Amino acid sequence: MAISHPPVSLRDRQVLVTGGFGLIGSNLVHRLVQAGAKVTIVDNLAPECGGNEFNLALVRDQVRFIRCDVRDRAVIGAAMPGQELIFCLAAQTGHVASMQDPLNDLAINLESQVLLLEWCRANQAQPRFVYTSTRQLYGPPQYLPVDEKHPINPPDVNGINKLAAEYYYHLYWKIYGIPSTVLRLTNTYGPGMRIRDARQTFVGISVRRVLEGQPFQIFGTGEQKRDLAFVDDVVDALLLAAGHPAAVGELFNLGAPEAVSLRALADEFVALVPGARYDLVPFPDERKVIDIGDYVADDSKIRRVLGWESRTTLRAGLAATLAFYRQHLHRYTEPS
Amino acid sequence: MAISHPPVSLRDRQVLVTGGFGLIGSNLVHRLVQAGAKVTIVDNLAPECGGNEFNLALVRDQVRFIRCDVRDRAVIGAAMPGQELIFCLAAQTGHVASMQDPLNDLAINLESQVLLLEWCRANQAQPRFVYTSTRQLYGPPQYLPVDEKHPINPPDVNGINKLAAEYYYHLYWKIYGIPSTVLRLTNTYGPGMRIRDARQTFVGISVRRVLEGQPFQIFGTGEQKRDLAFVDDVVDALLLAAGHPAAVGELFNLGAPEAVSLRALADEFVALVPGARYDLVPFPDERKVIDIGDYVADDSKIRRVLGWESRTTLRAGLAATLAFYRQHLHRYTEPS
Repeated sequence: MAISHPPVSLRDRQVLVTGGFGLIGSNLVHRLVQAGAKVTIVDNLAPECGGNEFNLALVRDQVRFIRCDVRDRAVIGAAMPGQELIFCLAAQTGHVASMQDPLNDLAINLESQVLLLEWCRANQAQPRFVYTSTRQLYGPPQYLPVDEKHPINPPDVNGINKLAAEYYYHLYWKIYGIPSTVLRLTNTYGPGMRIRDARQTFVGISVRRVLEGQPFQIFGTGEQKRDLAFVDDVVDALLLAAGHPAAVGELFNLGAPEAVSLRALADEFVALVPGARYDLVPFPDERKVIDIGDYVADDSKIRRVLGWESRTTLRAGLAATLAFYRQHLHRYTEPS
Repeated sequence: MAISHPPVSLRDRQVLVTGGFGLIGSNLVHRLVQAGAKVTIVDNLAPECGGNEFNLALVRDQVRFIRCDVRDRAVIGAAMPGQELIFCLAAQTGHVASMQDPLNDLAINLESQVLLLEWCRANQAQPRFVYTSTRQLYGPPQYLPVDEKHPINPPDVNGINKLAAEYYYHLYWKIYGIPSTVLRLTNTYGPGMRIRDARQTFVGISVRRVLEGQPFQIFGTGEQKRDLAFVDDVVDALLLAAGHPAAVGELFNLGAPEAVSLRALADEFVALVPGARYDLVPFPDERKVIDIGDYVADDSKIRRVLGWESRTTLRAGLAATLAFYRQHLHRYTEPS
């Protein structure tokens, strides 16, 4: 599923992807390499994060890889010179994890972004940034679908730090002319996602359990609504945001073609995998306190301004995801 | 000017004041000591910050002083046990300085607050916090006077970090029951303020120049409006916020009895100090880009909910401030 109208020529352009071994990062890197970009990846491949070396096995020799932490100033100095496009995907994405170790979340999700921006300021560089933020910062929706004007009310540490990082990007654009676009993602899934445990989205652990013949779990009544974005569609949005002049200084929600209840999602698994089964279980306490209830994004702004389309139905996306993990399950469940 | 109706008995209560040697901190500490509180101060007395040892010369032997940086985890562990009330005043307050060294501002204004809150979470402590934030996070006002519902649009790094810290305090109240109140201050002035240079509010450097017989400077046309809060009134608000049950989990703007143009402020100096004179000069570039224009706070919420009154007229406050610095000028201009 390639983007049909690339908004910007990527041939021979120098592109940095932080978190390039993760779900979104690795799918983006494949697309960038296909388009002829000169790709540098910074990733620490931390086991609790989403990076997996297998995700880039096919293009590993076509990219420059700096294995390190985005909080490392020396590495930033090595990775940044000459970059024209920077996709900031390295993140601590766990909401519960952000509550367990707020200072770690602060360092990865906020301080490291400031380090990148400060490097640009100090070196008078103006690469194009795309920063992936989160729907979580809206908190429990006051109305649905949630547009970009919805009040902000971060229900957890992760939401606070992501919000602050958004403000930094916007500030450095306004004051120093360093161009950036913020995308507020909803749950993203697809081939390459972390499925080892429940640390990231519940789709991952559910895929694993389904393929291992185990029942998976749905929290609460299962009536909670979510929109799940397939990774190819998210990569489309990243590339549009990186190339479209109207994206500079803007923030956009990403959504999905359909919003579904968690129970309907579970039933999709059951439809796709013979014998799949699930249990409804009460919310664990540490999730309950930060849960935001129903969430559905209004993504009409990015459709209107950038011409983005979310094209992959949940069934098609889940089928592609399950097909991938049927083939490569052990690459994502065994210790790397 | 003592508060006439103390909302909470402070006798023998253990109170921590970070930044206790600064303008607001030191005036608060005097009030706390008078009321019989057991006061601990954490302050690094950094020369670029507002702390001045002379500010607490009269009560120095009645307080416990830990000279250190609020970012020092070991010191937090020493200062926190047993505290019932915590006033978080240690801050990097310079807006221009926050742009010059964002990571320093981030560490002082955000990370150190998270350290305090995390200490409480780890130790299951629930002291009462009062956190002083800033009007700056509203950005250029969309309407005047600015109430707490005004949109947020931080025009500088300081505003972003203060905003994130506010969200952390609110989150730790909601999730862990650690009670806090946020006060969004406007410019505060009075005896004990830093007057060495223009790093903090322009009132300080103007006081110095007036008393040294030099012309002081007003940026731009001088028509810009500000409300200037006298420190005694701000201390009243801090004590009310610390003691009033209705203050928990809330945020409040503080204002002043009157809003004045910078030129009217300058004319007050001229009226109070024979021979005082000033120049209108263009905004320096680094200030112009982050300047917010006119600002007047709507502080009706704290008046209504906590019964606060801003009682000190600008003339009375400036007169008291000038009288103080006439007597003690060298304590604030010579290297400490």
